[in-house]
Amino acid sequence: MTEPPMLSPSLRALQLQLQAMPPVAAMQVEVVALDQQGLSLRAPLAANINDKGNAFGGSLTSLMTLAGWSWLSVQLRAADEVAELYVADSQVRYLLPVYEDLRAWAGPIGDDPATAQAAAAAFVATLRERGKARITLQAQVVLRSGEVAACLQGRFVALAKR
Amino acid sequence: MTEPPMLSPSLRALQLQLQAMPPVAAMQVEVVALDQQGLSLRAPLAANINDKGNAFGGSLTSLMTLAGWSWLSVQLRAADEVAELYVADSQVRYLLPVYEDLRAWAGPIGDDPATAQAAAAAFVATLRERGKARITLQAQVVLRSGEVAACLQGRFVALAKR
Repeated sequence: MTEPPMLSPSLRALQLQLQAMPPVAAMQVEVVALDQQGLSLRAPLAANINDKGNAFGGSLTSLMTLAGWSWLSVQLRAADEVAELYVADSQVRYLLPVYEDLRAWAGPIGDDPATAQAAAAAFVATLRERGKARITLQAQVVLRSGEVAACLQGRFVALAKR
Repeated sequence: MTEPPMLSPSLRALQLQLQAMPPVAAMQVEVVALDQQGLSLRAPLAANINDKGNAFGGSLTSLMTLAGWSWLSVQLRAADEVAELYVADSQVRYLLPVYEDLRAWAGPIGDDPATAQAAAAAFVATLRERGKARITLQAQVVLRSGEVAACLQGRFVALAKR
């Protein structure tokens, strides 16, 4: 067992929001960390295992999608914006079977932290101006070995709550 | 409550196989029917609901992916072939929020039952010949109104167990 991570108030709120969704609670999704490039989640293999003893593809996609949704959700909360966040579409590639606990990371396209911050700022500005904003995010399931087991690119939409 | 459908032995075996996977059991996935064009599954909204009171996107994708996997699994069983079935990649579009129980259908590309049967036969023949076969399947989440709420196109791979 690893120690539960010390989460900021914003990430604790996110953890509660995730746990309140029955399918996400069933996956036992935990918030791990937020840094300048993105947000990471994890989930135990046992709750997400398939008939072949590795991670169910649906769980891999769900975890990557949730990581993207969570990153956006944290950005909106930090900007004091309230909006409904949806995933609009995604492309997923399953590259390697996962025989360990699932770890997914998501953030804006591009490796540069400055790009990530700029993408978040532009998203919030568009939402304020138009009541709606879209952003394309990338996500990956990364193994302990560092290998990428699955990757996702998806468009997310926010609709301001008026 | 609707009556549980009368399932053939092949679909009952599939139902047990699905229930044996913890994340699929948590979604409460049920096998509905197999016809000449594809296979359909359902899952209750309550087990698959998000923070907005509609179906979690991850559950929609999982159900569509499982429907494709299940269709292939039934084809292989009918042909007395034993293989590991994986999803290799997929593209998903989320079109409408789902405020009712989830129903997903999957089958080969094309509306013609003869095409579906030919695709299944070609898949089995390639698996026998090469020990490996690929097929592209389509899947949809369809509302009671007949509207398509989400659609998926994905490539599946079978590896013969030697």
